[in-house]
Amino acid sequence: MKILITNDDGIYADGIYHLKKALDQIGEVLVVAPDVERSAVGHAITISDPLRVFEAERDGVFFGYAVNGTPADCVKLGIRCLAKWTPDIVVSGINLGANTATNIIYSGTVSAAAEAVIMGIPGLALSLTAFDVKEFDYTCRLAVDLVRKIEKNGLPEGTLLNVNVPPVPADQIRGIAITRQGKGRYEEFFDKRVDPTRRTYYWLAGKRMILDSDEDVDDVVIMRNKVSITPVRYDLTDMKMLDELKKWEIEQ
Amino acid sequence: MKILITNDDGIYADGIYHLKKALDQIGEVLVVAPDVERSAVGHAITISDPLRVFEAERDGVFFGYAVNGTPADCVKLGIRCLAKWTPDIVVSGINLGANTATNIIYSGTVSAAAEAVIMGIPGLALSLTAFDVKEFDYTCRLAVDLVRKIEKNGLPEGTLLNVNVPPVPADQIRGIAITRQGKGRYEEFFDKRVDPTRRTYYWLAGKRMILDSDEDVDDVVIMRNKVSITPVRYDLTDMKMLDELKKWEIEQ
Repeated sequence: MKILITNDDGIYADGIYHLKKALDQIGEVLVVAPDVERSAVGHAITISDPLRVFEAERDGVFFGYAVNGTPADCVKLGIRCLAKWTPDIVVSGINLGANTATNIIYSGTVSAAAEAVIMGIPGLALSLTAFDVKEFDYTCRLAVDLVRKIEKNGLPEGTLLNVNVPPVPADQIRGIAITRQGKGRYEEFFDKRVDPTRRTYYWLAGKRMILDSDEDVDDVVIMRNKVSITPVRYDLTDMKMLDELKKWEIEQ
Repeated sequence: MKILITNDDGIYADGIYHLKKALDQIGEVLVVAPDVERSAVGHAITISDPLRVFEAERDGVFFGYAVNGTPADCVKLGIRCLAKWTPDIVVSGINLGANTATNIIYSGTVSAAAEAVIMGIPGLALSLTAFDVKEFDYTCRLAVDLVRKIEKNGLPEGTLLNVNVPPVPADQIRGIAITRQGKGRYEEFFDKRVDPTRRTYYWLAGKRMILDSDEDVDDVVIMRNKVSITPVRYDLTDMKMLDELKKWEIEQ
């Protein structure tokens, strides 16, 4: 298999290092990832600036291409210019922090997998729902299994898989659930501060709110210490509202 | 009505200037917009940097607040910190360039309206599908009509309206159509160039491909010189694939 890997935590993050090691065992891997952390960039792409590419080393050898762009840029540039082949799959991660519920919309990790499916290539987004994790073995094994299953079964055109692993040791994980995207979001506020030169600035802060209780929802499943796998599709038309809207008699 | 306006072309763009003038007639308007152009930023939010706010003037008087952030940042900051009221609606635009089909995912304009609906406030995204337009009257009249209709009829929680106006003079517009999001995307390539200091850079380029022919699709309707109005909803679960995925027997 030919596998393109990216992430939004940057090419020197732990998650992408372990993911590459794992996927090296089952295919030819190319890493194309942001030069620095690009979290919460959503589906941003760089159109008004040039993109630069450099070869990044880890353990003293070539690890992959670093790009001064977003995860979506990395997927586009990787496929169009840097890989010598068309990948069979694009895997994004392993992200630290949950990409569930409304977070999916903000997530650079998921947007990379979405960019892949826009380009007609299967996409897989992997997140560990904790920030202090050092243990990637379980998620890496799961990644290998899922890549193989996607190779075998395929994915519908336009659909990616969004995987979130609960923040507990492997022996406490209580299985895998196929889930829906939840409605949870952040209860946000801005911390208004004054800098050393007395200029005001605002810093976004907030805490996660889980607004679901159904057992087949991503956030709920994570609370039960299960892995959440959601099939995600950017089919954004509200079909119900479409018919309603026709009655509005908008005329100009 | 209390109306929050933003855009992704920046606070000094023509589109937001004319939109504010139009909506000033029907309500109390506050502009909170990016300090510079932030096109194609998708649903990016700024979490790793401070946000700065300054008062921007146009015609020698206060026009609105400029923020060194994305359209989604502007909506969050506007609602949480800068407006003295909770808006009845957030209007984003008037963007120059189509926000149809796959472009919706990349669009800063649409993401601002999406941020509003995440926060429980109706959202309206307005785009003129041309880059060389100087004539905003028609779109402004439509904006006023739509804001009033949204006030009267409401929108379902979580749904925004995405409006695209064809690139022709008002007297050539052949009505309004309620549409679905198309499948069209860009046929992209990267222009590989060498800068004056002999370093390589890549610049994203491409041309729009319209991949639909159904008469109720946004891109098709625009080609017919009609206004396209799509109800957009970020409900990303692929329900069909959800059942299929349960048969995959993923176990770890």
